[in-house]
Amino acid sequence: MARMELTKDFANDFAARLTAVATETETLLGRLLGGEPLPGETARPERLLAAMRHAVLGGGKRLRPFLLVETAALCGAPRDGALLAGAALECLHCYSLVHDDLPAMDDDELRRGRPTVHKAFDQATAILAGDALLTLAFDILARVEVHDDANVRIALVTELARASGLGGMAGGQMLDLAAEGRFVERRALGEIEIAMLQAMKTGALIRFACRAGAILGQAGSPERASIDRYGAAIGQAFQIADDLLDVEGDSATLGKATAKDAAAGKATLVSALGVKGAHARLDALIAEADAALETFGAKADTLCAAARFVAQRRN
Amino acid sequence: MARMELTKDFANDFAARLTAVATETETLLGRLLGGEPLPGETARPERLLAAMRHAVLGGGKRLRPFLLVETAALCGAPRDGALLAGAALECLHCYSLVHDDLPAMDDDELRRGRPTVHKAFDQATAILAGDALLTLAFDILARVEVHDDANVRIALVTELARASGLGGMAGGQMLDLAAEGRFVERRALGEIEIAMLQAMKTGALIRFACRAGAILGQAGSPERASIDRYGAAIGQAFQIADDLLDVEGDSATLGKATAKDAAAGKATLVSALGVKGAHARLDALIAEADAALETFGAKADTLCAAARFVAQRRN
Repeated sequence: MARMELTKDFANDFAARLTAVATETETLLGRLLGGEPLPGETARPERLLAAMRHAVLGGGKRLRPFLLVETAALCGAPRDGALLAGAALECLHCYSLVHDDLPAMDDDELRRGRPTVHKAFDQATAILAGDALLTLAFDILARVEVHDDANVRIALVTELARASGLGGMAGGQMLDLAAEGRFVERRALGEIEIAMLQAMKTGALIRFACRAGAILGQAGSPERASIDRYGAAIGQAFQIADDLLDVEGDSATLGKATAKDAAAGKATLVSALGVKGAHARLDALIAEADAALETFGAKADTLCAAARFVAQRRN
Repeated sequence: MARMELTKDFANDFAARLTAVATETETLLGRLLGGEPLPGETARPERLLAAMRHAVLGGGKRLRPFLLVETAALCGAPRDGALLAGAALECLHCYSLVHDDLPAMDDDELRRGRPTVHKAFDQATAILAGDALLTLAFDILARVEVHDDANVRIALVTELARASGLGGMAGGQMLDLAAEGRFVERRALGEIEIAMLQAMKTGALIRFACRAGAILGQAGSPERASIDRYGAAIGQAFQIADDLLDVEGDSATLGKATAKDAAAGKATLVSALGVKGAHARLDALIAEADAALETFGAKADTLCAAARFVAQRRN
């Protein structure tokens, strides 16, 4: 492995940094989802706001904001703008959870140990809360507090839209439903098809988090390419770890149902590679993440630790 | 009335202008929803793309793009950028139709004389198609072809987000469902509450169309204020005309079900003002639209005609 195993001190430092971003993000999101209408808004209807707050507040590791803030720091961007962009990304991520949990989609009743939005409220409210969170993500990214150069904000808007729309996350969810055999007869996907599906469904947003940090820091092309390579590696690692947790985890720790993938006939790399093969792949992806950031030296230690965190997480 | 009744020549000219924008918008949307992935997209899944095309292509008056293009022309903005922004707005409008038609929302099976997206495809696909269209709207607005100044594009992103999210269209739909008595006991709304609900649910996007034209033309504050006043007036007129059609129209001409509002117990200004009172209000709103644009003189004739078109439409 290109980097030594983490020392205990470093691991503590990493945990502190992760917690700091999570706390700051929670505070920011609470403020962004306040009751006061902004210029251009007429009113903020109470029930819709409550559903959005339910979807977004109260937990989550805030992994995507963390990656955004840390890549931004690596590229020398101010922290406040990165935190705000991270909050936007978290709104977008949470919208996708709300819609994916709907009965017509994955039909989940539990998320982070709490009722999903359509259970706590109702389906119509959940659909609208997801829509409004998606919209809010772009609203936030466009704010001058994210970066004073409008070209930078526009680049973030474009990147987020591409990562999350037809050719990204939404498209990936469509492929995932299709792979379950909903619309046509089910057929086993090959490893390459599964990897593409997952690159779209979950990889694209994680990769965006890293790219966004580089954009905010106005990094040069070689740095951007390195960070993008890192983002692609941990995006894959994240999904494999997630699929492993569905096999190996328990629902109490996870706060959501497990063993759902096999039951739904979902295509995962764990089913394609086996549990042992999946663990080996994770090790290879950690090495790939390290190699991608080698050019940054010790400045990238936190992001290298993040790769291990993503690959080895237990919830 | 501040302006003479339309001459036959002028009416023909107006119809030609409306058709031209509709045709150009259709072409643009067809191109935007092509199969080729853009930079930053992985692939465009066929079924999702087909559902998005079903939602967006093949008809509609394209009223919002028309208003955007005509206000942009009034403010001296190039037509191509306005058409592209209009296509973005139409994607956003169509997403709202797809989600509003879902069984959990208004439960409609017919739209523009064709099956709604969840009938032609399925609910999961319809939810994702709406999500992806909403995302695409921001993707398009951020493109340099809309305007070469990133500050102008960012202003459009912000305005569209505010008009369509929690404090705008999505919030208005939430209030509308609440007014039907879904979540709490139904109570009759007063005229002011109905007007606010409608300003959010349908008014905000029509008003955005007009404001966006002024933003693209980088109009000064007084011009922006005039155009905004016009947009607010025709936004209201649009909704009253829509509610009147639900009472007076027939479903064959409209291509969707009628008399649904009363059946659903919807709060409309027609029920608050009566049919005669609603027609009188429409006349007052046309006069208000004319007054708002008086400062532009004859250059605003097309937009004044648009106000009549919106208020007096039969489908």
